[in-house]
Amino acid sequence: MKLRFDGGGSSSEAIGEYGINAAQYGDLQPRLQAARTALKQAWDDSVLGFFECPDTDPQPIMDWAAKIAPNFTDQIVIGIGGSSLGTRAVLESYAGELNGLRTHVTENVDPSTYLALLDSVDLSKTLFIVITKSGTTIETMAKFWIAYDRVLEELGEDAVATNFVGITDPKAGSLRPLSAELGFKTWSVPPNVGGRFSVLTPVGLVPLALAGYPIDELLNGAKACRDAVFATEPGQATLERCAADHYLLHQKGYAQTVMMPYADRLDALSEWFCQLWGESLGKAKNRAGEIVNVGLTPVRALGVIDQHSQVQLYAEGPRDKHVVFLQLEDFGTDVNVPGRSGFPGALSHIQNKSLSKILTAELDGTQAALTAAGRPTSRWVFSDGNPVEIGAFIFAWEYVTAVMGELFDINAFDQPGVEGGKLIAHGLLGKSGYEEHARVVEGANRNVMSIV
Amino acid sequence: MKLRFDGGGSSSEAIGEYGINAAQYGDLQPRLQAARTALKQAWDDSVLGFFECPDTDPQPIMDWAAKIAPNFTDQIVIGIGGSSLGTRAVLESYAGELNGLRTHVTENVDPSTYLALLDSVDLSKTLFIVITKSGTTIETMAKFWIAYDRVLEELGEDAVATNFVGITDPKAGSLRPLSAELGFKTWSVPPNVGGRFSVLTPVGLVPLALAGYPIDELLNGAKACRDAVFATEPGQATLERCAADHYLLHQKGYAQTVMMPYADRLDALSEWFCQLWGESLGKAKNRAGEIVNVGLTPVRALGVIDQHSQVQLYAEGPRDKHVVFLQLEDFGTDVNVPGRSGFPGALSHIQNKSLSKILTAELDGTQAALTAAGRPTSRWVFSDGNPVEIGAFIFAWEYVTAVMGELFDINAFDQPGVEGGKLIAHGLLGKSGYEEHARVVEGANRNVMSIV
Repeated sequence: MKLRFDGGGSSSEAIGEYGINAAQYGDLQPRLQAARTALKQAWDDSVLGFFECPDTDPQPIMDWAAKIAPNFTDQIVIGIGGSSLGTRAVLESYAGELNGLRTHVTENVDPSTYLALLDSVDLSKTLFIVITKSGTTIETMAKFWIAYDRVLEELGEDAVATNFVGITDPKAGSLRPLSAELGFKTWSVPPNVGGRFSVLTPVGLVPLALAGYPIDELLNGAKACRDAVFATEPGQATLERCAADHYLLHQKGYAQTVMMPYADRLDALSEWFCQLWGESLGKAKNRAGEIVNVGLTPVRALGVIDQHSQVQLYAEGPRDKHVVFLQLEDFGTDVNVPGRSGFPGALSHIQNKSLSKILTAELDGTQAALTAAGRPTSRWVFSDGNPVEIGAFIFAWEYVTAVMGELFDINAFDQPGVEGGKLIAHGLLGKSGYEEHARVVEGANRNVMSIV
Repeated sequence: MKLRFDGGGSSSEAIGEYGINAAQYGDLQPRLQAARTALKQAWDDSVLGFFECPDTDPQPIMDWAAKIAPNFTDQIVIGIGGSSLGTRAVLESYAGELNGLRTHVTENVDPSTYLALLDSVDLSKTLFIVITKSGTTIETMAKFWIAYDRVLEELGEDAVATNFVGITDPKAGSLRPLSAELGFKTWSVPPNVGGRFSVLTPVGLVPLALAGYPIDELLNGAKACRDAVFATEPGQATLERCAADHYLLHQKGYAQTVMMPYADRLDALSEWFCQLWGESLGKAKNRAGEIVNVGLTPVRALGVIDQHSQVQLYAEGPRDKHVVFLQLEDFGTDVNVPGRSGFPGALSHIQNKSLSKILTAELDGTQAALTAAGRPTSRWVFSDGNPVEIGAFIFAWEYVTAVMGELFDINAFDQPGVEGGKLIAHGLLGKSGYEEHARVVEGANRNVMSIV
């Protein structure tokens, strides 16, 4: 395990006036130290449960999964946002085959894809994992009831108790009383851990364990990362340096954070990051209640593919992006471009080169070209993306996000801006007492024009 | 077919000072008219080949595909950027099953995913479609040679001639002479059509036809869209109104374009859009050679999923986004949330509602909530996403992009900003004469810090 951060590409040594200099970093030290103190206090007070997640004992979950999994071949994870992104990101990052249940994560309420998924499995061999922290997520509960109906019709009442598992708040919401009534197992989400910080709670750990993923190693990585932070003096941790880079670049007008892995299996990590970063830091008000409309827009890219799509914009467009590359040193497998007679001259140098070598050359070339164009970049390096490194990566970004919240002086752990849309949707679906909200849509300004 | 555009959400009627008013739109009229004139001239002069693409006769491709397809079960499309995104976007948008070859599009040079793909097919029943307009794309040619080696080893020399098809420039690059030497079929990409505008050339049409997709309807949709534009007075087309909205919002500081379909099968259309928009409009210099560093950053989102990830940021964060929703009216299939006794009260109103109704309520709710927060939005509405509508959508955004290029006074059809990275990558891979480029990476500023 040797997850590393290289911020050299956003320094003034690399890109001159566009980068961060030592003085700017030094000036931020007192605020970084204060951020550490505040966060440590919130951990001690059990306000920020994500600090405690790495200490979760994985054994009860692993034992239970080992007992349950043999009854099934597939699991369908019904969740959305923080209830699905982490599980997908971790699972997809795994090199090689896992020995547990085949895992299908269903997030949207799109009828075509959901019905196709339900039709594709043997219901009697499928375990449904229904995840909603609040227990009232409309998308998840709608799909739960549809699955429930199928299981009841096709397999009978007893199967409901065995083929469903709920993961939800220990007290609130509608899923917990339902589980008691219908007789299926539930796991609890700690109330002090927000959805987007919850992958290291049962929200992620239960489906991952059922899939055969080594959740003990994942937790070990997170713990090692947390301990490495707190083994340093406040303001001196690598991740605080990383947060400082992001914050100082934001002050200079770089309001977008592009996460660009150069490895297919790290792609879903950017999706997970996008929720964490976007929803935590995009806030209308600071803690004093002043309107700030702050936020960093996370942008997903995938190397080398997006060199052929987005890098033109990153190199020449507005100076508003900080590109964060993710590098994987060892893919666990490789293949050489063969050496063959008749190889055209213009590309003869790629003969006998491996694909991973080409990929790394493209990453190095792209970062260097962005540097030459005066664009800030940084790089995270994984050795082989093993579960310990993935766990460390998860905790690392949770911590960086929390530090950023302190620097912006905002609440990084709420999401008041999504309530408005929910109220209107409930109204449109006929919820009693919400008629007023629905009326907003009737009165919306429309200007529908035909295209064809 | 009734693809529609609704720009009502970005008008001052909807969002007051943050929106566009009639006077601003009126002031832009002369420039919109000039854009039409310039683009029409470029079409007449055969400079901008994308205008001619809808007139392509699909019959030769369809006849050839009908003859070839029965020899295979699968096709592997090797391409990247403009050589893959359009094919994927169109294929994934199709409702239901196609009767042609199972299609695998491989874009990255990640060794694990490429080897897994090669191992997953029966080589003797697999047709490789190798697509590179320039004929020198390093990623595509590397993977061509690896596939070539496998086919040669496992099936022998004759199979190379039958199991490969090239799609490339009629003259330039290394793929064409190779195809002559090795005896496989090629199709030509018109030299006046750039990669990101090429889905309606053989680049997209050949693999789509082999997959069984009705390319004639796709072309009909594009043609209908083009004809609808040119049936109006300059400056009066729906798509010119749409371009005006994007341009005027950009002038007001909205530098990001979020494309957010509410249907899983329209998701890949945003990826295709991201290349078109990002690479065409992200430019360092205008036509006068002045440094402008202009560009609109395309951002992919997917409804309803990203309501649980990005909408917090869209509603409360910086005022820098224009959210473009894509709505699908008819999913072709649907399912109701059942009505069951024991349904919890808080969600009892979703009983007997269909998933598509829930999805639409969420879209309406989200757009209305963004409107209430003074954020500009617009909406594109598909009836059922049939091939005619998809073809119209493709031409529509190509045209809007071209108009935007005129309004920004930039060349929307080149990509000079990606050359630097390529030169360095070639140098790092040992290309003779490129040693100097490689040296940039050796001298790069690094600051590697351990995380764990």
